[in-house]
Amino acid sequence: MSAIDDLTTELARLPGIGRKTAQRLTYHLLKQPADQSRRLAQALVTLVDTVRTCTRCFNLTEAPLCNLCTDVRRDGTLLCVVEDAADIAAIERAGAFRGRYHVLGGRLSPLDGVGPDDLTVGALLGRIPEDEVTEVILATNPSLEGEATALFIQRQLSPLGVRVTRIARGLPVGGDLEYADGVTIAQALQARRDM
Amino acid sequence: MSAIDDLTTELARLPGIGRKTAQRLTYHLLKQPADQSRRLAQALVTLVDTVRTCTRCFNLTEAPLCNLCTDVRRDGTLLCVVEDAADIAAIERAGAFRGRYHVLGGRLSPLDGVGPDDLTVGALLGRIPEDEVTEVILATNPSLEGEATALFIQRQLSPLGVRVTRIARGLPVGGDLEYADGVTIAQALQARRDM
Repeated sequence: MSAIDDLTTELARLPGIGRKTAQRLTYHLLKQPADQSRRLAQALVTLVDTVRTCTRCFNLTEAPLCNLCTDVRRDGTLLCVVEDAADIAAIERAGAFRGRYHVLGGRLSPLDGVGPDDLTVGALLGRIPEDEVTEVILATNPSLEGEATALFIQRQLSPLGVRVTRIARGLPVGGDLEYADGVTIAQALQARRDM
Repeated sequence: MSAIDDLTTELARLPGIGRKTAQRLTYHLLKQPADQSRRLAQALVTLVDTVRTCTRCFNLTEAPLCNLCTDVRRDGTLLCVVEDAADIAAIERAGAFRGRYHVLGGRLSPLDGVGPDDLTVGALLGRIPEDEVTEVILATNPSLEGEATALFIQRQLSPLGVRVTRIARGLPVGGDLEYADGVTIAQALQARRDM
């Protein structure tokens, strides 16, 4: 049946959703009230129609500037650089940061053909004098590519005389030393602090 | 942002998709080309608009009768009873059955408030004389509820004098005895056959 196959194919394109899960979801979407499935489709259309990237920080927004850039209580001299807008949501949930953000739109990944020009590094450099930024916190992921991206940006920023910091790596709170990987334990030991 | 929250909420209603996965999917749907996301939404709308249940066997179809009911090469005297239309797809992939089907639309589940009247048992009973059915294969799931449903239907069918069989339970092909659960092993031993 083409309609079932079509939706299954589209769903299977999503990350983390294989052919079998896509099929299961399709049958679920058929089984539930049609209105419910229509609401999902409408929410998706509304999403792509209304959500854009902030012209300053490249966060997701429905207005030209995102609500973090327009929030005057935010400290604009402190800039947290993340790979994706989803990372902002994670940091905001933690509620421990009151500065502003800059979304790179990815990480350097030569194998995937992602170079410096594919990221918003140029815009970031421009914001340093413009927003009178005093510290840039590099919060790219603690992965190989995230580290390489942080190192690259640190080098680009160094001529500007701004303080550049990197988020700490270590054992996750609530984690178990027994199950932590060796690299994390090594980082946690190396970054140990006096108590 | 409402559009992001809306879609995340709708996605999180799907089975097996929690809040975090829904959020990850939403960001992915924003990141990919808008046309791709629109195609997904359109496929979903087309699905609920065009797919109906077969008036005879309750399989999913875009026509009044499904392609299995209209296929004259199928043996109409052999009827395979399944819980959901998705089960038909699984059996058809196996390619080992040439009869017709009957979809119950679920299984008996008193805790969820699903009784005999919520299933298509009445229509099944009507098909036995109408289609001159000689054997009904009960292919409900080998779960507690699936077994109870099979037993219930077997009792309903017995006055009609039709042969009623149940799909075999045993060790899955390619499975490992070491990791099989006790109930399956017990069933496999009990249903052993001469070689």
